[in-house]
Order: sequence, then C-alpha cells, then structure tokens
Amino acid sequence: MKSCLECIPCFVRQTLDAARMATDNEELHERILKHVLSDLQEIDWAQSPPEVAARIHRIIREHTDAVDPYRDIKDHSTRKAEELCAKWGGASLRNGDSFDKAARLAIAGNIIDFGAKRSVSDDEIEAAITDSLDAPIAGDGIAALQAEVEAADSILYLADNAGETVFDRLFIGQMPREKVTYVVKGVPCVNDATLEDAQQAGLTEIVEVIDNGSDAPGTVLPTCSKEFVDRFYGSDLVISKGQGNYESLSHVNHNIAFLLKAKCAPVAEDAGCEVGSLVIRIRKTTNSK
Amino acid sequence: MKSCLECIPCFVRQTLDAARMATDNEELHERILKHVLSDLQEIDWAQSPPEVAARIHRIIREHTDAVDPYRDIKDHSTRKAEELCAKWGGASLRNGDSFDKAARLAIAGNIIDFGAKRSVSDDEIEAAITDSLDAPIAGDGIAALQAEVEAADSILYLADNAGETVFDRLFIGQMPREKVTYVVKGVPCVNDATLEDAQQAGLTEIVEVIDNGSDAPGTVLPTCSKEFVDRFYGSDLVISKGQGNYESLSHVNHNIAFLLKAKCAPVAEDAGCEVGSLVIRIRKTTNSK
Repeated sequence: MKSCLECIPCFVRQTLDAARMATDNEELHERILKHVLSDLQEIDWAQSPPEVAARIHRIIREHTDAVDPYRDIKDHSTRKAEELCAKWGGASLRNGDSFDKAARLAIAGNIIDFGAKRSVSDDEIEAAITDSLDAPIAGDGIAALQAEVEAADSILYLADNAGETVFDRLFIGQMPREKVTYVVKGVPCVNDATLEDAQQAGLTEIVEVIDNGSDAPGTVLPTCSKEFVDRFYGSDLVISKGQGNYESLSHVNHNIAFLLKAKCAPVAEDAGCEVGSLVIRIRKTTNSK
Repeated sequence: MKSCLECIPCFVRQTLDAARMATDNEELHERILKHVLSDLQEIDWAQSPPEVAARIHRIIREHTDAVDPYRDIKDHSTRKAEELCAKWGGASLRNGDSFDKAARLAIAGNIIDFGAKRSVSDDEIEAAITDSLDAPIAGDGIAALQAEVEAADSILYLADNAGETVFDRLFIGQMPREKVTYVVKGVPCVNDATLEDAQQAGLTEIVEVIDNGSDAPGTVLPTCSKEFVDRFYGSDLVISKGQGNYESLSHVNHNIAFLLKAKCAPVAEDAGCEVGSLVIRIRKTTNSK
C-alpha cells in the first residue's frame, strides 16, 4: 500500500510523540520535527507508510541516543493485556477449542498501537476487547482463516505491538504450535514488539520466536534480514498482524492472512471496510507477479 | 498565547483539510501541503496559533481561487444549530431571564469548530449542547460573567464559528442589546463566521454587526482594521468566543471575558482546565502593560 497525503499529518504527529518519548530535551524535539518536515517534502509516494515511518524513526535516532523509548509503555501494555486475558478466560482458552474467540481477541488486541494514535488508554483497550467478542469481522471471515491455518504446514506469524502479543499467544494456542514461528522486529520502533516483548508475553515458551532484522514499524522486506526473507517466502502461510504489516505487505505476492483493526481512513479504504472494523483479508499467491 | 510544537501536527492536518475543501485537484493538495511543510520550518514561536494559521490559509488562497471553501459546511452548521435551538427552548430563552442557560449553550456551541478538529458530526454537536446544561464551568463562573456584562456600557462580542452564531444570538438576547456589537471575520477562514453567517443566524436583526477586517482564524489585532482596533480598546468589555480568539488575545491587556470549549491540550493547559471543559476566563485591564 502506497503512502498518501492523508499520511503526512499522521507522520508529523507521530514524529512529535516519538521525539518526546525519546528525549526530554525540547530543543531536540524542535530540531527533529523540523528535520522531518524537511524530509517529508521529498517523500516518495510509492513507499508504504512504514517505509516512510522507518525513515522518520531513523532521524529521531540520529538526534537522540534513545534505544527503546516506548519500553515503559510496552511493559505496561503487556501487563494490562495479561489482566484482560485473565478476565476473558485466557486460561480456559489456552487449552480449549476456541479458534473464533481467540482470533477475535487477537485482532482486537491490535488496538494497542501508539503509531496510529497518540495514546491508547486502558479503558479503550478493555472496551475494544469486550466489543470484539460479538463484533462483525470484515473481509474473509474466521472460518476461512481457520481453514488456511489447518492447510498450512508452516506458519509465520508476524507480530505487531507489545501487549497485543499476549492475545497472539492465546490465539497461537489454538493452532498446532509446531507449525508456528512468531516474528518480532529487529530494532525497537514505536511500540512494536521485539524479542523482549515476546518473552514477557510468554511466546518464547510455546513457539520459536525470530526477529526480522528490520527497524521499520511493519514488514518492509528490503529492510529485513536475508534469513527472514527466506523464511517468509518459504512459509506456507503468513499471518500478518496490524496496520503496519498490512501497509507494507498488501502488495506482496504470497499466501498472507492479514488480521487487523483498521485505524485510519486510507487503510480502511484499501482493505474495503469502515474505520474501526476488525478485518481478516486472505491473500493467495498468484503465479503472475 | 504562543504557538508550540504541539500545534505543528494540527497545522499540517488543518492544511490538508482546508486544501481539500478549497479544490478537488490532488496535485494542488500536494503542492499546498509541501509549501506549508516548508513554511512551518521557519515558524516564529512567538506568534499565536491563529497568526500561523492565517499564513497557512493565505498559502492555500495563493494556490487556489476558492473564496469561501467552508460555505456549505457553514450553512449546514447554522441550520443544525437552529434545530437544536428550537429543541432546547430557544424561543422561550429569547425573551426569558436565563443568562445561565444561554451562556452554557453559547459556550457549548463552540464545539462547531473545523479548525481544531477534522470534522464535527451533528451527533457530537447535539451531545455537546445537551451535556452543557449541567456541566461544570471551569474558571470564573457564569455569575462573574453576568456581573461584567451588567457593569459594562459597551460590549464587543467576538464571534467564532458559523452555527455557534445561533447560540450567540440566544445569549445576546439575555443582554441589553443596545450595549452589544457583534464582530465577525473580514475574510472567510475555515468555518469562522463572516457577515453572511451572522445574517443567516439572525444577528443583524438584533444588534450591530461589524467585521474585524482580518483574515485570521482568531483576533490577531495587527491584522485587523484600525476601525476595529479602536472599537476593541474603546469597549468596556470584550466577550471573546472560542479557541482562536483565546489564543490570539490571551496576552492582550483589556477587559476580556473568554468563553470557550477547550479542545486541545495546549489551550487547556494555558486556560488551567481539562481538555473538553467549558471555560469562562475573565481578564481585567491592568495599568502596567
């Protein structure tokens, strides 16, 4: 999915948020913001939003020495998600046969996104989780997703945000675990999950966890490690969580099941749904590229 | 009130919204947005947000021939406000003794602001009006405002947005009308009220209506006509509606009663209230400038 004019105000807002997370130095906030305003004038509209966002976050890292500015927020999100998970019967789900419910929780958990929005309150997370249990699912439906999961021998599950990881763990618990590899980002970017977040959410205890070698808040294949790209194309099915992964992979020719909450108009339009929808979009490999 | 970094994402969002209102030409949207991104790098932080916004809207006018891009939205807002006004007893208020209720409606009507937010739905307007009737008022209170109105011989009432004008008419109906002059913008900017909007809302039938000669979405005195500035300093009391007027006049040494709904964090912080609050702030002339 290409970037569009609508993305620009969002990039600028995200720059300010991330700069403030990275440093308390207000002069640096201004310097970073002006650097990004300048950079955005040269934007290549063929790039996906996560490609542009990756550039922005590289600029922020150039100006600061922050390694993982969203660390505290990510830790809090994971704790909050564990609470909600306990409340919504996570324990029973873990061993139960509840693909539908677990899929809904995993998609709804995608609300924990500090890239698409300035902040997400605990109340918003709780409401999204509660509402998801009987919300309509736009697109291809949970049954179709379940059929894809059953048919695949190898599944690459691309994580999105920390906290959401807890719901991913529940959902992966509904799949034959030996099929599944969970993929996190190589470098911290916004609140995207890294290995540390996957460990905190207990993913490393149930499946293989690898990182994609990239610093983009999505899966921008040219920025990923060769090892990851080989695993990507070698997998029977990729489960892609969230907007950033959707934006960067929607044009990629492979078997991909996109699971996301559509949080902005350009993504909702591209995915053919309303803003706020829970979406499953299944893309099948075609022979013609 | 000075601009701050927080204003930048909002300026960029407002640029895109206003460019889209002004023309359907997508190439122009991009050209305008890049022109503004460039201009914002040279921002003078001593300027108030409406001063910067006025520059932005001048850039948009340079690129397009749109005279009043928000005309249809403003007409709709006025009609919607008349509906709500009828529903909330506007007719009885018009001749009644309900300063408190009319003040609340006039402040709540300030939600009809397409500068602070991308869009405002009819439902949001209705909810804001309904909630205002028993919401707490931050700041100096309605009784203090009423005392100022009673003590003043001449009142300059600075309009903010079209639609809000209808509630202003109700509120002015609670004052000795001969004291009051209603002030609109000299040039259309976002959905700020101009003479046409004041006429539609029936203001011209009850009080003198003048324009301030300015194209800024606020009251930036150096951009106003000499006639207006003389009237401003010659009045006993200025009633200033909305964020734009607050942002541009909060530092001005004169008797000013600010009535607004605080719609963003920098304004709420400056006004000493929570975001979303209905606020009355009364500023008295001091001898030391």
